[in-house]
Amino acid sequence: MTGEEQFERIDEITIKGLELDSGKAIPEVLQVYAMYGSPAPDGSNVILVCHAMTGSHHLSGPAVPGLPDAWFGPLVGPGRALDTKRLCVICVNNLCSPYGSSSPMSVNSATGHPWAMTFPVITPRDVARAQKRALEAIGVRKIRMALGGSFGGMIAIEHALSFPGDVSSCGVIAAPTRLYPQAIAYNEVQRKAILSDPDWAGGDYYPGQGPVSGLATARMLAMITYRSEQNFNGRWMRSMADDSADRHEWGSKFKVESYLDHHGSEIVSRFDANCYLYTTRAMDLHDVGAGRGGIERAFAALADRDVLAVGISSDILFPNWQVMEVARLAGKSGARAAYEEIDSDNGHDAFLIDFDQLDEILRFFFKQKGI
Amino acid sequence: MTGEEQFERIDEITIKGLELDSGKAIPEVLQVYAMYGSPAPDGSNVILVCHAMTGSHHLSGPAVPGLPDAWFGPLVGPGRALDTKRLCVICVNNLCSPYGSSSPMSVNSATGHPWAMTFPVITPRDVARAQKRALEAIGVRKIRMALGGSFGGMIAIEHALSFPGDVSSCGVIAAPTRLYPQAIAYNEVQRKAILSDPDWAGGDYYPGQGPVSGLATARMLAMITYRSEQNFNGRWMRSMADDSADRHEWGSKFKVESYLDHHGSEIVSRFDANCYLYTTRAMDLHDVGAGRGGIERAFAALADRDVLAVGISSDILFPNWQVMEVARLAGKSGARAAYEEIDSDNGHDAFLIDFDQLDEILRFFFKQKGI
Repeated sequence: MTGEEQFERIDEITIKGLELDSGKAIPEVLQVYAMYGSPAPDGSNVILVCHAMTGSHHLSGPAVPGLPDAWFGPLVGPGRALDTKRLCVICVNNLCSPYGSSSPMSVNSATGHPWAMTFPVITPRDVARAQKRALEAIGVRKIRMALGGSFGGMIAIEHALSFPGDVSSCGVIAAPTRLYPQAIAYNEVQRKAILSDPDWAGGDYYPGQGPVSGLATARMLAMITYRSEQNFNGRWMRSMADDSADRHEWGSKFKVESYLDHHGSEIVSRFDANCYLYTTRAMDLHDVGAGRGGIERAFAALADRDVLAVGISSDILFPNWQVMEVARLAGKSGARAAYEEIDSDNGHDAFLIDFDQLDEILRFFFKQKGI
Repeated sequence: MTGEEQFERIDEITIKGLELDSGKAIPEVLQVYAMYGSPAPDGSNVILVCHAMTGSHHLSGPAVPGLPDAWFGPLVGPGRALDTKRLCVICVNNLCSPYGSSSPMSVNSATGHPWAMTFPVITPRDVARAQKRALEAIGVRKIRMALGGSFGGMIAIEHALSFPGDVSSCGVIAAPTRLYPQAIAYNEVQRKAILSDPDWAGGDYYPGQGPVSGLATARMLAMITYRSEQNFNGRWMRSMADDSADRHEWGSKFKVESYLDHHGSEIVSRFDANCYLYTTRAMDLHDVGAGRGGIERAFAALADRDVLAVGISSDILFPNWQVMEVARLAGKSGARAAYEEIDSDNGHDAFLIDFDQLDEILRFFFKQKGI
């Protein structure tokens, strides 16, 4: 084996009878995961990283065919904040991701056809439950820290709340206690763009590519919410694209429009529209208090646990006050909770960009907590 | 004539050879307008109100068939802030509005067919120029104040900058000096939704209704930018719609989703998709400094004029700092500029809702300036 192969191990495991929040169950669920470093027998060195909506389990290292580029590279590796010389970092591909785990793209063995829109609606809690089952199946029970950003932050906190006996700390980056209605609204417009595209065909477009235009439109809107006005002003202001027609003609393009176009095309080349629908809906259903008698009761599970909440100063999707709320309510419930902030104009995506700040925040937290 | 008929007079006028910023010209342009009160011979009592994107010239009074409800009613009338006992309030329907003035829906006399996408691209300055020509044709040259909100604010300031000898003051509510890239981005996603709808058919859908789904999607996104997170939180938080399915089923609806649906359907019942494209593009092209050597040089036309800029505390479409900039740069150029703010959680739409605050701001300004 080469050093690279040793560094990242990607594998998969099938779990049976996954119970969902809806009361339904999926008979057979595939979970794909990546592991960096080796778990200690007592789990004291396991960091579970949860990935965001269009990310994957491939956190660090060279390109892996079929997966998007590693999104957490500067923080995962020997000597890095998540130091794989002593920590074991695991990321399980999310349920309903197109990158390997079961999703609407998977074949339903009962019918022999892709699930498409017959896949049951899921929640971040379901995603965490599937990951937990996969981890147990590979012999990992205890988790020193569950950590994630955006949708991954929702899944991370669900690990801590659903399995408090096994998860001793939790890191929530740029994610709220529950989805507030403005974020639901942004998601709904994105879904509407996909559902309105005739090529979506009720979700039954496999093996075709499906709603190219609808998915691109959805992503274009998402990209606005992932950045900030300051970011757009600093990058382009009102500059026209290099290949733009005269601005008084249809077909002219501001640079910001080219940027959106680019990201629209990019997502179509690598993501699945039905997975996009399921994942945004799962996000809408994020509510740590649901089925637990409210947030405060839910957060009682965090008593005597360590909670790190990291907001982003310019986040317009999950504004920093929503992340402060995670720390405040966790603290109120008896957690040792800290709030830190990434001070950046990059908007929500800062957790994928401003690694220097996240590096400092995580190292400080790990040092304090003896992780 | 009844009192009602006397109160609002709606009429139209045709102007010939309208020159545009693009260098093109439209041979014949219809302009529809509403007038409340009577103009003084010297124009000293004329307030020109400019309407926003999907509004109309019908400012106040009972319903007029074919036009949306009056949007400025509480402020226009006898004894109101825009007191029609002494002031003459005029609103000219915007070029490219579907409510009467020439637009892509109009028939191009050269071809006998609707202009559709062959209509030339326009700017807020073009809209102001068309209105100015119409006003001159009906004998109104001097304007005591040009006043508008949102797109109307862009047109109002263009009146002041394009015809400084005739416009002695200007009121800009919730509008910027130029469109910043985030607002262009929101517009572009809206246009993308329309253009992606097969029923748009390159714009040649008349006499049909055109891209119902694309236009609804565009409006749904627009509605998010017209309100604020505080507003959505205060109204619904995470409540489900009364007729919603179980939240774990597709087809379930949060109240915020029903709200967006409602506004999507509403716009389709009263607006035209091509007009939506032209008007959002006109907004993108708003830049008071374009063709004038930059904003500061452009604003030299405001020297010794009165400028009132009114921002909205929770506006996410044209954040208050953009409106402060209008006042700051106008003041720097020698205008008597004031900045006031509507303190509201209603977001951008506050100028159509928080009339009590706008009433106070306008009365104070009029009193100070002897209007």
